Amino acid sequence: MDIFYSENLLDSSEEIIFSPNESKHIIRVLRKNIGDKITVTNGKGLEWIGLISSIDIKHARAKKSSITLKSRPDSTIHVGISPTKNSSRLDWFIEKVSEIGVNEITPIICNNSIRKSLNKDRCQKIMISAIKQSRQLFIPKLNPIISFTDFIELDHSDSELYIAHCHEMKKNEIHQLENINNKITVMIGPEGDFSIKELESVMIKGGRSISLGSNRLRTETAGILAVNNFFIQQHILNS
Amino acid sequence: MDIFYSENLLDSSEEIIFSPNESKHIIRVLRKNIGDKITVTNGKGLEWIGLISSIDIKHARAKKSSITLKSRPDSTIHVGISPTKNSSRLDWFIEKVSEIGVNEITPIICNNSIRKSLNKDRCQKIMISAIKQSRQLFIPKLNPIISFTDFIELDHSDSELYIAHCHEMKKNEIHQLENINNKITVMIGPEGDFSIKELESVMIKGGRSISLGSNRLRTETAGILAVNNFFIQQHILNS
Repeated sequence: MDIFYSENLLDSSEEIIFSPNESKHIIRVLRKNIGDKITVTNGKGLEWIGLISSIDIKHARAKKSSITLKSRPDSTIHVGISPTKNSSRLDWFIEKVSEIGVNEITPIICNNSIRKSLNKDRCQKIMISAIKQSRQLFIPKLNPIISFTDFIELDHSDSELYIAHCHEMKKNEIHQLENINNKITVMIGPEGDFSIKELESVMIKGGRSISLGSNRLRTETAGILAVNNFFIQQHILNS
Repeated sequence: MDIFYSENLLDSSEEIIFSPNESKHIIRVLRKNIGDKITVTNGKGLEWIGLISSIDIKHARAKKSSITLKSRPDSTIHVGISPTKNSSRLDWFIEKVSEIGVNEITPIICNNSIRKSLNKDRCQKIMISAIKQSRQLFIPKLNPIISFTDFIELDHSDSELYIAHCHEMKKNEIHQLENINNKITVMIGPEGDFSIKELESVMIKGGRSISLGSNRLRTETAGILAVNNFFIQQHILNS
């Protein structure tokens, strides 16, 4: 089963006309014929199943056959992460955590962040491609880039706040956490780590330090492992 | 602490002369001076600490101050993985599992592998860079590329064999495994997955199927998560 993505798709949509790119993919690569099933999502939980009604190479069409609307999972993970100096490393992070099933990503500019911008359209394309690839009905929410200070001033009252860093202090390993909220926010710092001052301001907000093992990980690696490990721990504790 | 890598370094080596590239890095980037400490490893557990004795920009030198020889960890993870169609995806896999601390990597050519070669020198460079970055004293062993059949015919008697795949059958989640060997071999297939025949031949050898969750992951993502999850599970069960 392949999944297609159409941002404006509604559960009431009776027909889809695919873009020239998708049409080519459907007809030339997947070799779909009239009457074949096709699944489309809007990234908001809608699974729209249609039957191919036209194999026009530029404007393939499908007519609605059935729909299912999935509700958002109770457990969510939100990552606040510094852009990496090399933008392709953040691209990889976004692809991987989208495959794993992260819910929300906020790029944050920290004291030691070298790059202070990101191409939102490019990130959006990566996320669409990742959810199609990994066959998911939800696309992560990518928030605008904000400062570290603005990020910690957001209302985190309904989630638990964690921060991964390399400073020496008592830290929790994610797999040792015995009770975790089903809403997690985790912060991942830039190449030069969070500053002590930043770390302190997270502690004041009730944030907890986590360790990702003894090796010093790159920003994007730390981000991927944090999301994966919290995902597993939520699954273990909530199932 | 930064770690440098020198393949031929011995515990008896009294002096190191750095390459022009490393010399430049030591003097221009790290701004080391005569008398400053520097740590070098051979990737085989040797931690060689020296003091800078010359800051010649092309041939910086250090004289031995102390050495420590770490023994290999008891728990090991060996990944057999198909090369990915896009070689940069395998590069990323190699970088990430090296950061996490994988012990051995064997590229395997499966029925559905599209690319059947890899650049060993390039992979070696990525591994060196990753262990320096993550401050490790052991470099993973990268074996020559072999066929799937040759891989399963290797002697796996001292390790437990696992295979990650997308075929529908009963699978173990890594975090649910209650007893695992401290030597793990895990196989990750190509974009088109392992064939049923390949899967059966692993089962005959006593291999067990593992699941990495319900999302269909890319080859390199599956490889990274499998290594990380086994690493954590070994840590939980052996500590």
